[in-house]
Amino acid sequence: MAFVDMTLKKLRDYLPARPEPTDFDAFWAATLAEARTHPLAARFEPVESRLSTVEVEDVTFSGFGGQAVKGWLTRPANAAGPLPTVVEFVGYGGGRGLPHERLVWASAGYAHLTMDTRGQGSAWQVGDTPDDGPSGNSHPGFATRGVLDRDTYYYRRLYTDAVRALEAARTHPSVDPARVLVAGGSQGGGIAIAAAGLVGDLAGVVTDVPFMQHIRHATEITDGYPYKEIAEFCKVHRDKVERVFDTISYVDGVNFAARANAPALYSVALMDDVCPPSTVFASFNHYAGPKEIEVYPYNGHEGGGAHHVARALEFAQSVVG
Amino acid sequence: MAFVDMTLKKLRDYLPARPEPTDFDAFWAATLAEARTHPLAARFEPVESRLSTVEVEDVTFSGFGGQAVKGWLTRPANAAGPLPTVVEFVGYGGGRGLPHERLVWASAGYAHLTMDTRGQGSAWQVGDTPDDGPSGNSHPGFATRGVLDRDTYYYRRLYTDAVRALEAARTHPSVDPARVLVAGGSQGGGIAIAAAGLVGDLAGVVTDVPFMQHIRHATEITDGYPYKEIAEFCKVHRDKVERVFDTISYVDGVNFAARANAPALYSVALMDDVCPPSTVFASFNHYAGPKEIEVYPYNGHEGGGAHHVARALEFAQSVVG
Amino acid sequence: MAFVDMTLKKLRDYLPARPEPTDFDAFWAATLAEARTHPLAARFEPVESRLSTVEVEDVTFSGFGGQAVKGWLTRPANAAGPLPTVVEFVGYGGGRGLPHERLVWASAGYAHLTMDTRGQGSAWQVGDTPDDGPSGNSHPGFATRGVLDRDTYYYRRLYTDAVRALEAARTHPSVDPARVLVAGGSQGGGIAIAAAGLVGDLAGVVTDVPFMQHIRHATEITDGYPYKEIAEFCKVHRDKVERVFDTISYVDGVNFAARANAPALYSVALMDDVCPPSTVFASFNHYAGPKEIEVYPYNGHEGGGAHHVARALEFAQSVVG
Amino acid sequence: MAFVDMTLKKLRDYLPARPEPTDFDAFWAATLAEARTHPLAARFEPVESRLSTVEVEDVTFSGFGGQAVKGWLTRPANAAGPLPTVVEFVGYGGGRGLPHERLVWASAGYAHLTMDTRGQGSAWQVGDTPDDGPSGNSHPGFATRGVLDRDTYYYRRLYTDAVRALEAARTHPSVDPARVLVAGGSQGGGIAIAAAGLVGDLAGVVTDVPFMQHIRHATEITDGYPYKEIAEFCKVHRDKVERVFDTISYVDGVNFAARANAPALYSVALMDDVCPPSTVFASFNHYAGPKEIEVYPYNGHEGGGAHHVARALEFAQSVVG
Amino acid sequence: MAFVDMTLKKLRDYLPARPEPTDFDAFWAATLAEARTHPLAARFEPVESRLSTVEVEDVTFSGFGGQAVKGWLTRPANAAGPLPTVVEFVGYGGGRGLPHERLVWASAGYAHLTMDTRGQGSAWQVGDTPDDGPSGNSHPGFATRGVLDRDTYYYRRLYTDAVRALEAARTHPSVDPARVLVAGGSQGGGIAIAAAGLVGDLAGVVTDVPFMQHIRHATEITDGYPYKEIAEFCKVHRDKVERVFDTISYVDGVNFAARANAPALYSVALMDDVCPPSTVFASFNHYAGPKEIEVYPYNGHEGGGAHHVARALEFAQSVVG
Amino acid sequence: MAFVDMTLKKLRDYLPARPEPTDFDAFWAATLAEARTHPLAARFEPVESRLSTVEVEDVTFSGFGGQAVKGWLTRPANAAGPLPTVVEFVGYGGGRGLPHERLVWASAGYAHLTMDTRGQGSAWQVGDTPDDGPSGNSHPGFATRGVLDRDTYYYRRLYTDAVRALEAARTHPSVDPARVLVAGGSQGGGIAIAAAGLVGDLAGVVTDVPFMQHIRHATEITDGYPYKEIAEFCKVHRDKVERVFDTISYVDGVNFAARANAPALYSVALMDDVCPPSTVFASFNHYAGPKEIEVYPYNGHEGGGAHHVARALEFAQSVVG
Repeated sequence: MAFVDMTLKKLRDYLPARPEPTDFDAFWAATLAEARTHPLAARFEPVESRLSTVEVEDVTFSGFGGQAVKGWLTRPANAAGPLPTVVEFVGYGGGRGLPHERLVWASAGYAHLTMDTRGQGSAWQVGDTPDDGPSGNSHPGFATRGVLDRDTYYYRRLYTDAVRALEAARTHPSVDPARVLVAGGSQGGGIAIAAAGLVGDLAGVVTDVPFMQHIRHATEITDGYPYKEIAEFCKVHRDKVERVFDTISYVDGVNFAARANAPALYSVALMDDVCPPSTVFASFNHYAGPKEIEVYPYNGHEGGGAHHVARALEFAQSVVG
Repeated sequence: MAFVDMTLKKLRDYLPARPEPTDFDAFWAATLAEARTHPLAARFEPVESRLSTVEVEDVTFSGFGGQAVKGWLTRPANAAGPLPTVVEFVGYGGGRGLPHERLVWASAGYAHLTMDTRGQGSAWQVGDTPDDGPSGNSHPGFATRGVLDRDTYYYRRLYTDAVRALEAARTHPSVDPARVLVAGGSQGGGIAIAAAGLVGDLAGVVTDVPFMQHIRHATEITDGYPYKEIAEFCKVHRDKVERVFDTISYVDGVNFAARANAPALYSVALMDDVCPPSTVFASFNHYAGPKEIEVYPYNGHEGGGAHHVARALEFAQSVVG
Repeated sequence: MAFVDMTLKKLRDYLPARPEPTDFDAFWAATLAEARTHPLAARFEPVESRLSTVEVEDVTFSGFGGQAVKGWLTRPANAAGPLPTVVEFVGYGGGRGLPHERLVWASAGYAHLTMDTRGQGSAWQVGDTPDDGPSGNSHPGFATRGVLDRDTYYYRRLYTDAVRALEAARTHPSVDPARVLVAGGSQGGGIAIAAAGLVGDLAGVVTDVPFMQHIRHATEITDGYPYKEIAEFCKVHRDKVERVFDTISYVDGVNFAARANAPALYSVALMDDVCPPSTVFASFNHYAGPKEIEVYPYNGHEGGGAHHVARALEFAQSVVG
Repeated sequence: MAFVDMTLKKLRDYLPARPEPTDFDAFWAATLAEARTHPLAARFEPVESRLSTVEVEDVTFSGFGGQAVKGWLTRPANAAGPLPTVVEFVGYGGGRGLPHERLVWASAGYAHLTMDTRGQGSAWQVGDTPDDGPSGNSHPGFATRGVLDRDTYYYRRLYTDAVRALEAARTHPSVDPARVLVAGGSQGGGIAIAAAGLVGDLAGVVTDVPFMQHIRHATEITDGYPYKEIAEFCKVHRDKVERVFDTISYVDGVNFAARANAPALYSVALMDDVCPPSTVFASFNHYAGPKEIEVYPYNGHEGGGAHHVARALEFAQSVVG
Repeated sequence: MAFVDMTLKKLRDYLPARPEPTDFDAFWAATLAEARTHPLAARFEPVESRLSTVEVEDVTFSGFGGQAVKGWLTRPANAAGPLPTVVEFVGYGGGRGLPHERLVWASAGYAHLTMDTRGQGSAWQVGDTPDDGPSGNSHPGFATRGVLDRDTYYYRRLYTDAVRALEAARTHPSVDPARVLVAGGSQGGGIAIAAAGLVGDLAGVVTDVPFMQHIRHATEITDGYPYKEIAEFCKVHRDKVERVFDTISYVDGVNFAARANAPALYSVALMDDVCPPSTVFASFNHYAGPKEIEVYPYNGHEGGGAHHVARALEFAQSVVG
Repeated sequence: MAFVDMTLKKLRDYLPARPEPTDFDAFWAATLAEARTHPLAARFEPVESRLSTVEVEDVTFSGFGGQAVKGWLTRPANAAGPLPTVVEFVGYGGGRGLPHERLVWASAGYAHLTMDTRGQGSAWQVGDTPDDGPSGNSHPGFATRGVLDRDTYYYRRLYTDAVRALEAARTHPSVDPARVLVAGGSQGGGIAIAAAGLVGDLAGVVTDVPFMQHIRHATEITDGYPYKEIAEFCKVHRDKVERVFDTISYVDGVNFAARANAPALYSVALMDDVCPPSTVFASFNHYAGPKEIEVYPYNGHEGGGAHHVARALEFAQSVVG
């Protein structure tokens, strides 16, 4: 993949209009209020992981519709809390994985909650949380599940889970509620931005090559999946294109970015045809809080990789260290 | 795709053991009994289709779990019934389509009911029936939706819909209940075989390059989708392979074929890597009723195409003409 | 395929210069005059098709060079004529198919003549008409057959066949000569435009994602076949590029569009890399008769599919109903 | 491409039945007799090529149907003839090329006639000879041109050209008629074998990875073009498969090989999916004259390349040196 | 990738002849003796990694030819040694990576040395050790670097580095020399087997989908890289095939496996076309020490992934716990 | 590949800034001076090639670091020298080949020296010259071998070989030192331009679709190899991008072009995604000597092929005839 989008100079100034419905805030307020009618019921159960430097707990809490959502909480063994904490969301197709898969945040001294992704977890990292919501007539995948109605759309459920995951994390004795960051890459990065737009008191946001930003534009400029799922759906349902994008306007990351206030570290890759640079910059340029962005010119959707992990550790330390 | 499987000579003799659970019949009896606790509620409403030689009706009936399932009923205009009838099921990813898409059976003098495919209809031909059932953690697509439990598996719901579609068709005044065939290609052909195994009094079965036959073997010999979805699921859920195939044994077409009694016309293509020939012959060779098979040596999954439509018209006439 | 061409806004205004040779009209007048020196010899012979709502006749008439060209005429059974009529041309690689393959126009009450495509019919829908003309040194395919001389070029023969097919249709007792439309998709759409430019008294034109429009531009912006055949020929015959495009200027659809007068319905798809949008809009914007265009943003060369069939039925009714 | 076929051990013994029609010899005798009713009319005209060590002449002679066929004759400048001579045929899609493209045989002291390939020469090396014969309804390419009738099949014309090219070469004063070899790779190798089966007094045959050998088997085991053209034709014309292979039995190289008597050098590559090893060995094992075969285990259709050119020079010297 | 090789039943019995040169042991004894003429010069320097549960040291030691080779040593912070230890080798194209990339072994209580791979580390995980040895005329990549002579072949250097890495690890105060395992996947698994064949006193071997086993066979049955590099080299150097495989016989893992004595855990994937199952089983079946193998039927070269990490932790504990 | 770059009109004016280090000339002066400290030691040994119109000699001379570099010298048999001479360099991955592979220049009356390419010659045309220099941590291939330091970069060695090859050619009795051209395609064209910038007294330059021109831009606009190797290296070594391009500025062809004075014939292809047109025009437009460029609109990296060989013969004759 050569450079797939505008020049970097243009990207830095790219501030497209946001497709924001007038009742965006009301929709999300009602959605979260409904979720909160179910008891949070956060549970943390120790897991035998064969690891000794960290302790792992199996997490359960009530997400959208009161459905039980899973996760792992990993933290330094015998740490005297409360700890700065990272709540992480996972990329498209993956779930929370196995207890020993994601060790870097806990090894760096953080409490680290990885939220499972409802319905996903069968394409790479395993998941354990089904998606009980309605799926409608969808293109294979999750990006068009229930998309014909904003109330049945999959990402409404998933973002609500994320807000509840933050609430669950803050009930754990090792977690310092004042020092909670959200983090994630690709879909996980999109969820992190949504959480930052919906939850007002986060300490920081680490979002890498985020998905679900400036979505309609994405479907027009890339053939990469999973944005392509939406285009494929519209290809068949030629008469429902506007209805699809009406729903999608309620979950577009640019609208959450415009509401966020926590310090954010974005990353973007100029050869990324999965989450093209102009979609990431559209989100970054609309982001309302303090912000920095790391640009990786020769990378695709893998973005900054291990180099950027170091950068993220540095950023996290700067906001909660 | 060159010849993708055994020689034709070996295919004709290929009779592998069937993966049949001991409670197969009990499972399906209970499943259908549960479905029949919901009133069938078959409705047929005339549609304005701009067509004049045929009349089209919008069909609704109660499928699995009592969920409303859609279809089209198309028949010669002003026909004096009752008519011989074809109930057709659709290939993977498609739905019932638009009223003017499938005209050949009605143009040939049959009442023709096309059943919509729950949840599908966003990959090629449009669909209008959501899938309200649980989807669990699935690989994108339908072949692993709810696969970790035989009770939640998608194909349990879909095959039940098919049985109910037959019951609905038989309530229509133009349909002659004694002259009902089932038909379909690929997934539709697999549903037709399932229906033939579950419903004892059909007049004929037309099944082309059927999917969901000798399934585990298929996942071992082809990379073609949608069988590949199952392999992809097992690739991630390495610890659940046997559980997956335990569920799948309840929907494998070879088990339905062994219970069918209606005259059947199969077709198979020797360069088909979507539904490889040995999976089709496994089903055909286990088929318990009178049977014929048309072999297309130089075809892939498109099978016999329009040539075979003529063959199917001839076959249908021979059994109900 | 993401959006493959200019923005829709620019497409609507795109009016490139036409590569029109000064003797364009003389060339075609002479060509048609030559063809008409052969008796038309239109014959219609009933076919046994197993269909009952429509009647099918096997058509033969004299095309270019007096060569016998085949077709099917399909019409509502027992219709009291004369009927509004659609003469349809077929997409690249296909022929007239089998008698039961294309039922929608007759089912909607039209007489429907499908013209076979000389030499084609071995890539998808079968054909029965050989191409007796000289083929020269051509790249595999039809787009460069005889291209080094305007007199030997394949599309000269094919367009002439189309004009003769219209003349043949009008000899049939069921056809109302005052209510004849031409229709087709891709190559068939290109032939329809050529016919509309060569025949002055058509009732309408239905042309979907037409091929052979603004041809040289197409070879510069897409790698899609069959335009690519021309580019491949020029790749080898580096010294004959201008000679190729001199020939091609005699068959470029933009020149026929500028001469047409019948009401036209175009369709175009913004992700179509076979017949890119700017080539379709170049033709549409030059079209001299009343015109409408349906834009399918998320479609490739499949265009509007069954949705657009409904749109075409509506359009046809509006002009001949 | 890993090893694509049987083990080398099995290949050496592979002697399948030949699909030989009873009137094979009569067919070819009549075909050549018809061609010889046209005067050979061989002409050799000097060409300005900017080369000094060799002289090049533009060749014209009467091929099938008396049609003018082109070629180049290249020979060492100022050579005292008569010379040993190589008549070379070209691979699929190519023509005779430009005068300076094939220098190795003349540089090694041979008179070298490269025959143009009728109709071809627009896919890689340019050609100048049109194919005036009937092309029928063919799949794009040459392998199914006119294939529904043995009399109209393209390869009947092409092999006849080859026999006439040999006759033409022998009229040139520099050519020693007693020391004429035929040579070629892929399609050119297939033509060489055909020529060896039709012409009794050749000094040698150099055939590399030959095409058109054991043809039906080839269409069953490989997806490589151009054999795939035949499979694609049969894919569409499902009802004409036997008719296709009846025609093809008249041009299958295994039948010519069984009639040849000149010493032959074959080459074969074990990773060749264009002309799979078992098709080449079928021909080699049926070859009736003295024979050797060079096996290239890690090569695809490029075969022995420049290494094998050295081997061929050595072989040629051994038979005519 | 469907099943790519023999049935599992045949794989379990597959014991092909080993291509073992008579001076195999002498060659390696001389090679290691030469390497040991250079002082080992193992150095361990603390690294600032932002991690707190583990400590990381930058490792340097003398490998083949006395060249400085890098690595990381990671261990639980403040652990009271000596510890059981894992020396890990990296897959093809990767280097030692960054200090925070591989945390699982240290998090489980082991000292963990990751050896850098000379010359590699520019395709995925970064590397810091150049390859100073001669590279000859090689196909792009490492598998044919210097392959025309066993003394200049790249893998001679790399395996020697591995032996020296073990010697270096054992000089570290936290390492218990009696409890050292080797581990690795793909190329890393091949190096682990080589080390186990060259070093007599290891506590265990964890080798996943190992590369460089039964090599010539691999080049004949798969098109996957990096084995394909060897085939590509032989494709061009047609005259040097035997010379290539003579060199390769000195580094084939089956010969090392036949000399190993430590308990080994292999893994293999039945859809792995990079390191096909028969090459892995050839090695496993020749392995001379206690052994187990985990079979992943639906996996490709990713093998058992995180599930197998748990299995490897269990195995390691069983041999050194 | 459709047109891959700017319009031809823009290309003709495209004159980007050159990335020229201030010590460019000093670097190369020192590099060549170092090479010349080694005796040139040019040797020419007759080869038995089975050719008679030309004589071939095996060439050896001292290249970079005094390393022995190979070549072939081919010339008309029994020519009375001194002759105009072409020194040719080879495309990426290839070596000097076999003695009978490149005959056109000698057949046209030139002495023709083909220089081997150190380390290459295992991807298509064979090579016989190893690359003894350091390779560092490189991406598979040659474009990043030693790229982290200008002194260790592979192309420093290769360009130095080229200058020495010219010096070697001029010592041959058949070579007229006043009439020496350099020639090559792709990488060979890039070497020719470098040689023209480093050697002041050449008679002409024939450079086809040259590689290594305007290099950083190339890595940003194409995914074609071998430019992609550099992008892949930067993808992994995210922290070393500027260091890579600092090295590369010492070998960028645009800097050599700006120093050349010999008459040059360039060729460029508008559908070339290996060496995109804007990189070729950047070089051409900076070229300081007399110059012409041939544009092939419908070609990819094969460029003008045999047609352009004729053009090059004409050009060569015009400058040294």
